[in-house]
Amino acid sequence: MEYIFEYEFEVRDYECDIQGIVNNANYQHYMEHARHRFIQNFGLDFAELTKENIILVVTKAELQYKKSLKSNDKFVCRMNIGKQGIRYIFYEDIYRLPDNELCTKGRFEIVSLIDGKLGLSEKLEKSLPFMKMV
Amino acid sequence: MEYIFEYEFEVRDYECDIQGIVNNANYQHYMEHARHRFIQNFGLDFAELTKENIILVVTKAELQYKKSLKSNDKFVCRMNIGKQGIRYIFYEDIYRLPDNELCTKGRFEIVSLIDGKLGLSEKLEKSLPFMKMV
Amino acid sequence: MEYIFEYEFEVRDYECDIQGIVNNANYQHYMEHARHRFIQNFGLDFAELTKENIILVVTKAELQYKKSLKSNDKFVCRMNIGKQGIRYIFYEDIYRLPDNELCTKGRFEIVSLIDGKLGLSEKLEKSLPFMKMV
Amino acid sequence: MEYIFEYEFEVRDYECDIQGIVNNANYQHYMEHARHRFIQNFGLDFAELTKENIILVVTKAELQYKKSLKSNDKFVCRMNIGKQGIRYIFYEDIYRLPDNELCTKGRFEIVSLIDGKLGLSEKLEKSLPFMKMV
Repeated sequence: MEYIFEYEFEVRDYECDIQGIVNNANYQHYMEHARHRFIQNFGLDFAELTKENIILVVTKAELQYKKSLKSNDKFVCRMNIGKQGIRYIFYEDIYRLPDNELCTKGRFEIVSLIDGKLGLSEKLEKSLPFMKMV
Repeated sequence: MEYIFEYEFEVRDYECDIQGIVNNANYQHYMEHARHRFIQNFGLDFAELTKENIILVVTKAELQYKKSLKSNDKFVCRMNIGKQGIRYIFYEDIYRLPDNELCTKGRFEIVSLIDGKLGLSEKLEKSLPFMKMV
Repeated sequence: MEYIFEYEFEVRDYECDIQGIVNNANYQHYMEHARHRFIQNFGLDFAELTKENIILVVTKAELQYKKSLKSNDKFVCRMNIGKQGIRYIFYEDIYRLPDNELCTKGRFEIVSLIDGKLGLSEKLEKSLPFMKMV
Repeated sequence: MEYIFEYEFEVRDYECDIQGIVNNANYQHYMEHARHRFIQNFGLDFAELTKENIILVVTKAELQYKKSLKSNDKFVCRMNIGKQGIRYIFYEDIYRLPDNELCTKGRFEIVSLIDGKLGLSEKLEKSLPFMKMV
């Protein structure tokens, strides 16, 4: 998969649980933060979107856990975005650094509510570089 | 879907984010806690499993978000468990109470590592009432 | 110390960190949730307070950690409330159940902003049973 | 106060709660992570300390909340360390960047357990540059 954006993180100890590895749910937190930075990178601002009554909602989240991150690890979330009908699909894969080991694959379906109704936002259509979906 | 176990929760305000609804990742936390209570309900104890070198690992998590939970909501996580080869499949659906509105559907694939190797644990096989998988 | 309200909890595994005990910051989460239930117990509703432009803000938090809570523990947060000038002081002590071992003592200073200005709210004054402060 | 170490962070949206500001307990998470980086900066390694049976325990946490951090804010945690008898005192103050507005002051009392008993560790004594306590 080709990536068009990436964001780096480091593990914080409090994100690790009893087994000394990052808790499963925390990867969803990492990926949410990466999505927010992704959106900003393409000139969109959430505060502005909200004022214009454009709300982005996650309807589905799929995460595949391959290898665990642990205390002191650094990693990067590499991303791309596609579109299926009125759904935006975010691909977010987490690789450990510096060895680039794939740790977690994420796929998120997101819809936009314009004035409370499902629909495509012109602003998003213009700003985000959707890849062709197979 | 038929459920064989359920566990009740209430929303805590700190679990809600900027929009005043429970953050997406927090549903994974609820479902993890429900899985731990589920296991205990069928007589398994994690400390004991760990001592016997049986480690349960989540390899895949899928969550479908239908309706948001918010501050002051009470809810229940209803569950069933299946098996596909060496994978255990946990179905965990969250319903708001008391109106029983379906909020989130969860599906988790879990494998067991016996002495570090993927395999089926006799203890788990005997204790957990797997439903027939279609 | 005399307590006028209490709220019960159980530990969730994801709240525990690398040492298998509840992470320090999580006690602040428990105590925040207990404060919200305390307020409701005395007839106050946050949504209503916010609409009337009465905002409660924590200005100081002090926690003393005596004994750690761990996986499977149940506990209770016992509370009382005092007043010092324009500050409300919440006392929140966490005891493990059923043995009543004192785990954590908490003291929180809270002020109310009425229309953006520090002040005492008549509503809070009437509803909350402040103990005499020494 | 003089600082001898600092660590930078940025706010993640999931750390913000219903009011759109970082949840109170999350500052304790930030400060815990900063303490871990602080220790590493002076050549101490937790894994190694744990193997040598030296466990650091927080006995008291005090946080003063001056100004809230919000979504998109960057900040720095500036630190110093003192000693009172067998207690290590960590001072951790969070300043928003780039305007250097003081947001939160933290003070943490920490003791070390050597082989389960309270005591001072030679390793810590040699490695950490304690300031004179008034």
